[in-house]
Amino acid sequence: MLKDWKKIQGPEEQELEKRLHNARELLAKKQIEIKERKLPVLVVLEGWNAAGKGSVLGKVIRNMDPRFFKVAVMDKITEEELRKPFLYRYFIKIPEAGKFMFLDGSWMDEVTKGYLKGELKEQEYKKRLQSIKRFERQLTDNGYLLMKFFFQIDEKEQKKRLELLLNDKNTKWRVGEDDLWQNRNYKGCMELYEEYLDDTNQGTAPWYFIDAKNKKWAELQMLETLIKNIDIALTNSSHAVHILQNLFPINPIADLADISLDKMLSAEEYSKQLQKYQKKLRELHNELYRKKVPVIIAYEGWDAAGKGGNIKRIAGALDPRGYEVHPIASPEPHEKARHYLWRFWNRLPKTGHVAIYDRTWYGRVMVERLEGFCSENDWQRAYNEINEFEKELYDWGAVIIKFWVQIDNETQLARFTDRQNTPEKQWKITEEDWRNREKWDLYEDAVNEMLQKTNTSFAPWHVLESNDKKYARIKALKIVIHEIEKRL
Amino acid sequence: MLKDWKKIQGPEEQELEKRLHNARELLAKKQIEIKERKLPVLVVLEGWNAAGKGSVLGKVIRNMDPRFFKVAVMDKITEEELRKPFLYRYFIKIPEAGKFMFLDGSWMDEVTKGYLKGELKEQEYKKRLQSIKRFERQLTDNGYLLMKFFFQIDEKEQKKRLELLLNDKNTKWRVGEDDLWQNRNYKGCMELYEEYLDDTNQGTAPWYFIDAKNKKWAELQMLETLIKNIDIALTNSSHAVHILQNLFPINPIADLADISLDKMLSAEEYSKQLQKYQKKLRELHNELYRKKVPVIIAYEGWDAAGKGGNIKRIAGALDPRGYEVHPIASPEPHEKARHYLWRFWNRLPKTGHVAIYDRTWYGRVMVERLEGFCSENDWQRAYNEINEFEKELYDWGAVIIKFWVQIDNETQLARFTDRQNTPEKQWKITEEDWRNREKWDLYEDAVNEMLQKTNTSFAPWHVLESNDKKYARIKALKIVIHEIEKRL
Repeated sequence: MLKDWKKIQGPEEQELEKRLHNARELLAKKQIEIKERKLPVLVVLEGWNAAGKGSVLGKVIRNMDPRFFKVAVMDKITEEELRKPFLYRYFIKIPEAGKFMFLDGSWMDEVTKGYLKGELKEQEYKKRLQSIKRFERQLTDNGYLLMKFFFQIDEKEQKKRLELLLNDKNTKWRVGEDDLWQNRNYKGCMELYEEYLDDTNQGTAPWYFIDAKNKKWAELQMLETLIKNIDIALTNSSHAVHILQNLFPINPIADLADISLDKMLSAEEYSKQLQKYQKKLRELHNELYRKKVPVIIAYEGWDAAGKGGNIKRIAGALDPRGYEVHPIASPEPHEKARHYLWRFWNRLPKTGHVAIYDRTWYGRVMVERLEGFCSENDWQRAYNEINEFEKELYDWGAVIIKFWVQIDNETQLARFTDRQNTPEKQWKITEEDWRNREKWDLYEDAVNEMLQKTNTSFAPWHVLESNDKKYARIKALKIVIHEIEKRL
Repeated sequence: MLKDWKKIQGPEEQELEKRLHNARELLAKKQIEIKERKLPVLVVLEGWNAAGKGSVLGKVIRNMDPRFFKVAVMDKITEEELRKPFLYRYFIKIPEAGKFMFLDGSWMDEVTKGYLKGELKEQEYKKRLQSIKRFERQLTDNGYLLMKFFFQIDEKEQKKRLELLLNDKNTKWRVGEDDLWQNRNYKGCMELYEEYLDDTNQGTAPWYFIDAKNKKWAELQMLETLIKNIDIALTNSSHAVHILQNLFPINPIADLADISLDKMLSAEEYSKQLQKYQKKLRELHNELYRKKVPVIIAYEGWDAAGKGGNIKRIAGALDPRGYEVHPIASPEPHEKARHYLWRFWNRLPKTGHVAIYDRTWYGRVMVERLEGFCSENDWQRAYNEINEFEKELYDWGAVIIKFWVQIDNETQLARFTDRQNTPEKQWKITEEDWRNREKWDLYEDAVNEMLQKTNTSFAPWHVLESNDKKYARIKALKIVIHEIEKRL
């Protein structure tokens, strides 16, 4: 791909200047259209060191309105980032609707460098490639315009540029060991880049090569490519995309209607077991922390099913310095303006920590589906996107525990009525709860579909029968302990 | 203070259990009240290593609803945090209205440790103490309930506990060099802690000592102190506080009405100078980056004064990898729920980077004042709070440049009309702009007061006469260059 790539002959000086002038003006105009049409645009710059990515980028953005774009340099990975899944630092950087984000360096650089230097084993590298392809597809499927540029110079040109930099005392500091290493190993790098580019050259997120020998010509290529693809994206504005078939291993799971809810625990038995299992969980938490295993506990369930009290019994057994509870309400504007999983990527635990979610990313296929907050294509696609998200967490090493807290319709009514009639509990009940209750049957269908489509072997659902809250709490504790023990 | 502090005799076992039971239940109830009354509560835990802060905290929160509190362990300072002002990592952790934040370790630990180990010089330490006192006052002035606990054990007890931990292979790893060092230097530490505690024992944010010899008794002391102070805070809900007299050096500055706006630049002269100064600024940016100097450029001005175009000319001269433009609109819900400076602390540049703000924290004394988004006491207090904020940035080493972009009333009318009549510009003008225009005189008074009260010697205002935008852009470039050169 790289090897066979023919450099395109750039235009003559005068023609070049004219086209540059036009393209700059046009991009500034497009930017306003993008803002108005709320299109999120992610631009990735990759290529050989010393190919001039930075300086071309500097030129490209000179005519843009700084309020509507950001630039991020993805060089050094911080300690904090090392304690998160590999894609974390990229996912949290995605732009909001109507804005540009330029990434100078990206996931390509990270994984190819890791592999070339032997820090990433073959198998690990392959897995990352798969993660990357999923990530890119999730972005474009969710309406992102993703443009990936590769700045190409040949071995001799790179060498010349590095020597020029080294010979000037003002620029010497800009050349690092990595740059020299890359030039010495140009052919080996080239081979891997070829493979990578080929493998990730997807229809919705293709690669664009920039002949970077001449700066102005490089700028023009980048500008014109940006403009062309923005036009295409704006034409396609309200698009539905193909729903991928599920390829993850799914276990069968019972319909809600078939779950028997008469399980109970006496007060005496409850307090005995509570003490026992909390003690056990406390010890395990310590071990998790030392072995740096992250744990993700997701709670979904009917209103008034007892999620809050259940979470409290889990959290109560944990060291407060090693866990966090995330109550998930409707997204704030800056969250709504991004991929719906963005706010969850932003709330992942560090390795060794526990994150408990009081409602989760499954909102997409429940409330967002039923209230029409996303399109049908959106929520139908979400099952697979969520499975992919959880697979990413699993591959990172996380223990994933998903609870559906189940009660029957009459129990909910009884608890709602109790809340309404008890002054200290009234804050827990709103008009909305009553409105949602009227849609019980619709929700039940949605929940059944959700359980069936996302009950993967790596992130299975656990139903907590919660007509008797005591029973549900002990069951939750046992499951958490069991799942953690399996991992340790 | 510590030395003279008499341990309070704890109650007998039975009485202790009864009071614990009551206090736990009461705190759970208070938590709901706090949520409803939207009180933000920050609780700081300090004290001797091995005094049991963590385990007492674990007990205290066991009865709390995890949706309404968070715990943060402030131990290791990250590389990212090292490139921000000292208070950054604490300020960004403050809770939102209606929630608790427990900090295990805080600014006290950081500065006393730094001083004891010789990493902070005497003068630097003193300056930090002052910053801390301002920070704490700003929180309580803005309605935060701040409670600071110091867990006290004596030298012998500490030694005993450390030995116990060391002798058990399961707990050995929890004892670090710091812990042993502290015990060996107990007396020296004690002296500094005494001084620190004494100095920061402010009326609105006093210290509470916890006799930490016995865990249950420690828990009870903490619970009862929390409850008592929450009650006081809830009683005082809508409070106005004293406005501090300004003690910063202020330079005189002209009223807007006295500024002559007839300065102009020919197109030819403009493009010549633009090129010259942008080139200069580009070189300086490189040097800033290498010397790790952070730069903060704040833009305020009338609607349609030409802020956007002005910012573009500055940004256009900078390396895109080293600056960020922050457009500041009205705060999002999670921002509004915190101290009004929180969102600016969250948007500070790293050392060596430039942050440009398109509107700023001065919204507090302009739009928030005039639209009644905050109380009179709030905005009157804000002048000093803002001066303190900027002093913090200055002491950190930042170059601070504040621009007021000035036009006259007729020029604004002409530009508004032009925007209204030009299809490509219509997105720039809204009904709100016209409404604000009607309040020109009120705004002018507010701006004059703002300029006069915040024109400090360390963060002075610069007026950009922008009836001729070209003139204003060149003037801005010159000022930025001049201010940066002064620092380098």
